[in-house]
Amino acid sequence: MPITLLKLSCPDRVGLLARITAFIAEHGGNLDEVHQFTDAPAGWFFTRMAIETPTLRVSVDELRRAFSPVANELEADWSIRRESERQRVVLMVSKLGHCLVDLLWRWRSGELGCDIAAVVSNHEDFRHMVEREGIPFHHVSVSNASKAAAFERVERIWQEAGADLIVLARYMQIVPADVCSRWSGRIMNIHHSFLPSFVGANPYQRAWERGVKVIGATCHYVTPDLDEGPIIEQEVIRVEHFHSVEDLLRIGRDSERQALARGVRWHAADRVLLHGNRTVVFRD
Amino acid sequence: MPITLLKLSCPDRVGLLARITAFIAEHGGNLDEVHQFTDAPAGWFFTRMAIETPTLRVSVDELRRAFSPVANELEADWSIRRESERQRVVLMVSKLGHCLVDLLWRWRSGELGCDIAAVVSNHEDFRHMVEREGIPFHHVSVSNASKAAAFERVERIWQEAGADLIVLARYMQIVPADVCSRWSGRIMNIHHSFLPSFVGANPYQRAWERGVKVIGATCHYVTPDLDEGPIIEQEVIRVEHFHSVEDLLRIGRDSERQALARGVRWHAADRVLLHGNRTVVFRD
Amino acid sequence: MPITLLKLSCPDRVGLLARITAFIAEHGGNLDEVHQFTDAPAGWFFTRMAIETPTLRVSVDELRRAFSPVANELEADWSIRRESERQRVVLMVSKLGHCLVDLLWRWRSGELGCDIAAVVSNHEDFRHMVEREGIPFHHVSVSNASKAAAFERVERIWQEAGADLIVLARYMQIVPADVCSRWSGRIMNIHHSFLPSFVGANPYQRAWERGVKVIGATCHYVTPDLDEGPIIEQEVIRVEHFHSVEDLLRIGRDSERQALARGVRWHAADRVLLHGNRTVVFRD
Amino acid sequence: MPITLLKLSCPDRVGLLARITAFIAEHGGNLDEVHQFTDAPAGWFFTRMAIETPTLRVSVDELRRAFSPVANELEADWSIRRESERQRVVLMVSKLGHCLVDLLWRWRSGELGCDIAAVVSNHEDFRHMVEREGIPFHHVSVSNASKAAAFERVERIWQEAGADLIVLARYMQIVPADVCSRWSGRIMNIHHSFLPSFVGANPYQRAWERGVKVIGATCHYVTPDLDEGPIIEQEVIRVEHFHSVEDLLRIGRDSERQALARGVRWHAADRVLLHGNRTVVFRD
Repeated sequence: MPITLLKLSCPDRVGLLARITAFIAEHGGNLDEVHQFTDAPAGWFFTRMAIETPTLRVSVDELRRAFSPVANELEADWSIRRESERQRVVLMVSKLGHCLVDLLWRWRSGELGCDIAAVVSNHEDFRHMVEREGIPFHHVSVSNASKAAAFERVERIWQEAGADLIVLARYMQIVPADVCSRWSGRIMNIHHSFLPSFVGANPYQRAWERGVKVIGATCHYVTPDLDEGPIIEQEVIRVEHFHSVEDLLRIGRDSERQALARGVRWHAADRVLLHGNRTVVFRD
Repeated sequence: MPITLLKLSCPDRVGLLARITAFIAEHGGNLDEVHQFTDAPAGWFFTRMAIETPTLRVSVDELRRAFSPVANELEADWSIRRESERQRVVLMVSKLGHCLVDLLWRWRSGELGCDIAAVVSNHEDFRHMVEREGIPFHHVSVSNASKAAAFERVERIWQEAGADLIVLARYMQIVPADVCSRWSGRIMNIHHSFLPSFVGANPYQRAWERGVKVIGATCHYVTPDLDEGPIIEQEVIRVEHFHSVEDLLRIGRDSERQALARGVRWHAADRVLLHGNRTVVFRD
Repeated sequence: MPITLLKLSCPDRVGLLARITAFIAEHGGNLDEVHQFTDAPAGWFFTRMAIETPTLRVSVDELRRAFSPVANELEADWSIRRESERQRVVLMVSKLGHCLVDLLWRWRSGELGCDIAAVVSNHEDFRHMVEREGIPFHHVSVSNASKAAAFERVERIWQEAGADLIVLARYMQIVPADVCSRWSGRIMNIHHSFLPSFVGANPYQRAWERGVKVIGATCHYVTPDLDEGPIIEQEVIRVEHFHSVEDLLRIGRDSERQALARGVRWHAADRVLLHGNRTVVFRD
Repeated sequence: MPITLLKLSCPDRVGLLARITAFIAEHGGNLDEVHQFTDAPAGWFFTRMAIETPTLRVSVDELRRAFSPVANELEADWSIRRESERQRVVLMVSKLGHCLVDLLWRWRSGELGCDIAAVVSNHEDFRHMVEREGIPFHHVSVSNASKAAAFERVERIWQEAGADLIVLARYMQIVPADVCSRWSGRIMNIHHSFLPSFVGANPYQRAWERGVKVIGATCHYVTPDLDEGPIIEQEVIRVEHFHSVEDLLRIGRDSERQALARGVRWHAADRVLLHGNRTVVFRD
């Protein structure tokens, strides 16, 4: 069944859900799936509605136009789109390939629900692996001296690829603050620790030194503050005293792959809504 | 904020959510929390709405009366009630007290969201523990010969306690089929295995013999078919080869307590909706 | 540090560990890692010792010869081998590739600790994916009529590949009982349910129908009794009412991949010891 | 079967396990359970052995005397004791009773494996609950002015109770540094976050603000550095955007109770060995 997705967040007020569902009903739309959440302390309302497109009496473009004045009145952050217009994702990688391999396989199997438009790396290592999947691979080396120029080129690649989402799949470069700001809410990172534990470099080494009994990975949106952005998903796994740092690296890879894959899938399905530094995730 | 709870399930049709939210909006009700689920294969619709009572322009009784014809038309199974009218729960126990102790503590701490109206046991062991909490304790011994008479007495206790929910908290007697039927959807059991594994007696012994690496507990509604009723919640925990049957008993107790406590809490908050042998659980 | 692995199980008796560690000390061996377990009800003793090879005053072959009379006296099932002599694994697949892709990636990353000697399939689908990794791919189609002949050919491939372990990575054929017996303890399967729940076909469909709240996967050795063999590892994941059968298939894939990968890694490192229908797993 | 427990850690050297197991075999001791771990980076050896007491040809006191010169030579930190000489535990509580109730129940059920010698609180709230279990209750109020004097009194209670272990079961006072030092490795705390996340006050509030998707609890030994001591056990549980701070408090209680109960059980069974800021935990 073709689906039209409405995603919306706005200041809370009485009768919001009634108003929006009435609007959809007026246009003949049958609701397949509805999520709603009111953040009472923040006074904010969040919803995601999956509308059965064939039941609509208007086109999706017309529905969007008709909804626009309603949304303005609600001061809403919103989108209406066909689920079939899949989001375009650009992956950024360095020399660790486990997240890349995992995302490529999930993408091919159809479970990611997005298109992978390109892969960008500061190394050549994965060119063959990417190109054999029919995906464009761009090598943009980054040095401290060339960083600004390099990210200019990277950003151009993102734009030319028509990227809706950038995924740092263990990309070992810090994205400049101005790029983070321009792509706010559209750059996703996987950090190899259970944030806010072990912000920064070498989290597995530090986890070992601290002697934690559970390790984890965190999928979050990137902001100019390193590892401080809104968390989308976390995955954890139990470890014991006999696990070396190398064991943690190995075991942690599974957490990283799962947390990142879920984050990409949920973002691509308009299931992640942002408000300040917190996310509302209507999981599936 | 005082809350009025609407719980409803009915055959799916276009515009259901719009219709119900419009009804609530017409009566001035602000929605605090809305859950909705459509079981597409079954063609069934489920919802739970938490309405802010003070915003209603009518009393809860009037709201219920006004909704009645709507619900009839929708062929709905439904209820509207004040959250503050807490459900009354009767606990059934035998000689294992870990679930009883746990539920008593959670009840006293306020997290169960229900009243414990009475405890019934086929043994005297826990009389003191129950009565010191100010809860009536009834001893009804059950033998094969006396079973019918015993359960007549038990059922009378349930009725006199005004029970909305019966919880078999490791109660070692099989409830007669006719009692199960009369109290359908209102008797909850905790089975000490991960159903459908190890239906019946001695599940930990059999789990050990089978050499499973994870054990679990299942909270489910009781039906005349032993351990076959609709599952509300399951909890699992990893075990290893060095765990003896006694270890499994000990470790499993934590799973039992958690799965049962969540089941009771969710049922008491109208978060569990039944359809055939499956449950819809709007978790919190 | 090069390691020599001793794996042993035998009837329990007094002083076993002292005797074996004394034997190793007499030959100069420093112990890097020692696991021991006594199954008291069964009266059986299990151990795995990682010996630092360079500290040995004799060659590994001489150590093995010297240990042979000791082992005979203990009526032990045992092996002594260099860790660097990696086990040779043959993967069996049909049309679902998620376990295959996962095992290939883990193998290439070095985390499996074994060699993949060949892949056999009853379909051609994955020939390219396998051959581009430099691994021989054998297509052996299986029909009811040809089954005996097909498995004769399959078994010959296993022998020619020098296989130590056969991994059914979602291989959709039942291995004939005589083959199971000849390769007892050396054929590993991943079953897509939490055994003993949902033995047999379509476990995700049946899990959905039963309304379970947790699904899982089971890695076990294959015996002539379908899905009844000794369990090596299980992995579980929570699901909810809104997950369709297709969602369970998708979510379950992650459990399958993890449980199978751990099973292969542990078997390949001599960490799995069999006794009757139970396994002792000295996890890492 | 009566058991004698040997717990030992010392600098690593060749033949340690052989030497110790030979010592036990010479005295006729049959080993029921042996754990060993070598921390290669630290060059440290850890072992725990459960010896079947009736098989010993000497008394436990004689065994201890005989082992003393061996241990001196190995520069070992060690103990030999009868399992039946249960450790004596003093619980410290304030106004939150969930850990206290849980520990009392587990103690009564026998699963803690220790004696609860006394409960100390800076409030009177739990006097009745404790005394009805037949356990001495001491009220020692603590103010900033009286802190030193109060902890003098507390320490005297510990000494008079013959305490082997002090458990801060949500005790809301910071133990003075000199007391921490005198009781090093013998004071256990439960912190209501997944350390090192949210060290210090109000961890659930801060977890909510950070928008984490998993919360946890940490059982650790107390050192003068707040929340920085060696971690014994951690437990985690998934949360979602709809969980308020109050929900986190409620959900987290289950993690706290489980992590703390395991920590106490393992310490009381000599299963926790300390080295620097890391623990070796031979779990059961």
